[in-house]
Amino acid sequence: MPVIDIPADSLFGIDNLPYGVFSTPGTTPRVGVRIADTVIDLAAALGDTVFAHPTLNPFMARGPRAWAEARARITELVRGEIPARALFDLADVTLHLPVDVADYVDFYASEHHATNLGRLFRPDSDPLMPNWKHLPVGYHGRSSTVVVSGTDIVRPRGQRKAPAEAAPSFGPSRRLDIEAELGFLVGVPSKPGEVITPDEFAEHVFGAVVVNDWSARDIQAWEYVPLGPFLGKSFATSISPWVIPLAALEAARIDTPAQDPEPLPYLRGREKWGLDIELTVEWNGHTVSRPPYAHMYWSPAQMLAHTTINGAATSTGDLFASGTISGPEKDQRGAFIELTWGGAEPIDIAGEDRTFLEDGDEVTISAVAPGPGGTRIGFGEVRGRITPAIGAEI
Amino acid sequence: MPVIDIPADSLFGIDNLPYGVFSTPGTTPRVGVRIADTVIDLAAALGDTVFAHPTLNPFMARGPRAWAEARARITELVRGEIPARALFDLADVTLHLPVDVADYVDFYASEHHATNLGRLFRPDSDPLMPNWKHLPVGYHGRSSTVVVSGTDIVRPRGQRKAPAEAAPSFGPSRRLDIEAELGFLVGVPSKPGEVITPDEFAEHVFGAVVVNDWSARDIQAWEYVPLGPFLGKSFATSISPWVIPLAALEAARIDTPAQDPEPLPYLRGREKWGLDIELTVEWNGHTVSRPPYAHMYWSPAQMLAHTTINGAATSTGDLFASGTISGPEKDQRGAFIELTWGGAEPIDIAGEDRTFLEDGDEVTISAVAPGPGGTRIGFGEVRGRITPAIGAEI
Repeated sequence: MPVIDIPADSLFGIDNLPYGVFSTPGTTPRVGVRIADTVIDLAAALGDTVFAHPTLNPFMARGPRAWAEARARITELVRGEIPARALFDLADVTLHLPVDVADYVDFYASEHHATNLGRLFRPDSDPLMPNWKHLPVGYHGRSSTVVVSGTDIVRPRGQRKAPAEAAPSFGPSRRLDIEAELGFLVGVPSKPGEVITPDEFAEHVFGAVVVNDWSARDIQAWEYVPLGPFLGKSFATSISPWVIPLAALEAARIDTPAQDPEPLPYLRGREKWGLDIELTVEWNGHTVSRPPYAHMYWSPAQMLAHTTINGAATSTGDLFASGTISGPEKDQRGAFIELTWGGAEPIDIAGEDRTFLEDGDEVTISAVAPGPGGTRIGFGEVRGRITPAIGAEI
Repeated sequence: MPVIDIPADSLFGIDNLPYGVFSTPGTTPRVGVRIADTVIDLAAALGDTVFAHPTLNPFMARGPRAWAEARARITELVRGEIPARALFDLADVTLHLPVDVADYVDFYASEHHATNLGRLFRPDSDPLMPNWKHLPVGYHGRSSTVVVSGTDIVRPRGQRKAPAEAAPSFGPSRRLDIEAELGFLVGVPSKPGEVITPDEFAEHVFGAVVVNDWSARDIQAWEYVPLGPFLGKSFATSISPWVIPLAALEAARIDTPAQDPEPLPYLRGREKWGLDIELTVEWNGHTVSRPPYAHMYWSPAQMLAHTTINGAATSTGDLFASGTISGPEKDQRGAFIELTWGGAEPIDIAGEDRTFLEDGDEVTISAVAPGPGGTRIGFGEVRGRITPAIGAEI
């Protein structure tokens, strides 16, 4: 009965306890919890078959009382001794997509990002649309192309037309980009007509992940008017394998920046759901940005309230993401189109000038939140490598 | 062993044989096929447990050879005698959502509709965007709010701001509308990176339904720039309960209208996938429009090819819809915003002037295609009634 070694400065200490889905060679995927560099097989350790499923969905559907209970039992377990058969070295397991994603919605909640993109995509008009400070702008993305960290990203092909070109051409994207985001997972669904108020956020949302919403800017720019992004985004969205429970983010909760004009009543709440979480973006191993979630204009609680205000139901496994996280400083921008100002200002990556992603490039986005008593809560990372476009030129 | 009575002019004759999911009191939903006004319980009649599922997905996943085989067996069955226990009067069954919807994409494939909406939403610019004739414009919708015909539609609430108003207000939509569309269901999924060419359409697509993509025009107008429609559409999308197999639409296949400029090669095919299908829109029992699918600029085969050209995978149960079907004539428009020109030209419904939907209104959209030898193939109908907005004014 081993006792798990937890270094005092671990990003995955006793106050984190994120959930994921793992397997070892010859075994089927099942739910585990991470502590330091160890994965605990929860079905084996707790004897609850909800953890024997290959996704977190059945556990997420149980709701906040069950989540708190499981967290208490796991905490007790970790403080004591755990049967060896329930313990695995992180290095020995394969991590899988932790949830069966139902609907996927992506928001646009960073004022700095929306302003930067407005300037780049629509240089002749106000960068921020008139609606932007009245509602969290969002749109539906493609659920079936949400993949787990580590999955290679094949460069998408499609139609691209630069403003100066007379007609679109077809080929691999030449402006392949990232978007550093946080994503939130709905555990307890809501019925048609039921509104989830901002203060009911924790009754429904199970936890958070890091998201890289890969974006082909040339495809997006040509297609997105008037119905929004489609193929420029739908080829892949990567998420980190560990779902950080909301309970681990208590110490990270802060006010959002002041919202002016005051949002309509359905977007107001008493609970603080701004989040003091810092992301780090690495491009081929070089840190190029540290986007601060604390600057996000709209909170995830407001995003979910907005999603349901028209009566739309939510489902267990719904994923909604924040949109690119960009802070006010240049080295806090969460997309390369902003970091390089549309490609006009290359950045130095190990002596090479880079603008957009080249084949073979690897991007890793990680996040850290403050934990209780000066500890830190790690999200782990979402990582992806670009592989060349496939298919003959059609 | 009864023989089914099939009137010669039935829209559900031997050449149609659509699939749906039905139940009778005290029994679980399962797959049936409709012939005239009779539903055949396929698990009972054919002894194949794929039809005992509560959705068509497992059968749709089997692919075109299995679909053809089942159709041949059902044809044989209908021509002979069927065990009484496998037969139900249509009037005695409840029809359910026939598929578990994976990703839902809505297109914008009618030139007349896109032109009309461009004029109404953006009166100061070209009605058709520069991209429109180069690619089938589409976007992802909300899968979890796809409902079966007959489901009441609760009037959505949300933010609305007329151009003349200084700030948005919150409340029930005042411009609730329909969109008469056809929807197509993917049976055989495609892998990441796999492109479904236009000529491979029938290898993947199982069949078609009638779609009413309910739209709150005031919510949509305020929210949709720059990321597209979200809450103006996500509250409900209704589909007809019977899925018409592609095999029943052979006689309806026609060329699309001439496409100029010539589409890029990945959107070209030799197979004809324009469809000569006429829809009928009834508002409280009065026919207000007969949208002709034959005028649609982009074919469903082009829509699916476009969806996959960036490497995005498809799933069994993916639903993609055509977008509003509007013909060149006023009485061929598939949305009330077009029929009433943004509300400026009310239409007479039984002596009442109507622009957008009022509580208690019922809309029924049906479709008919030519069948072999002068027969007709009915789609049945998608029907929905508006009920008042729920929830206190927040």
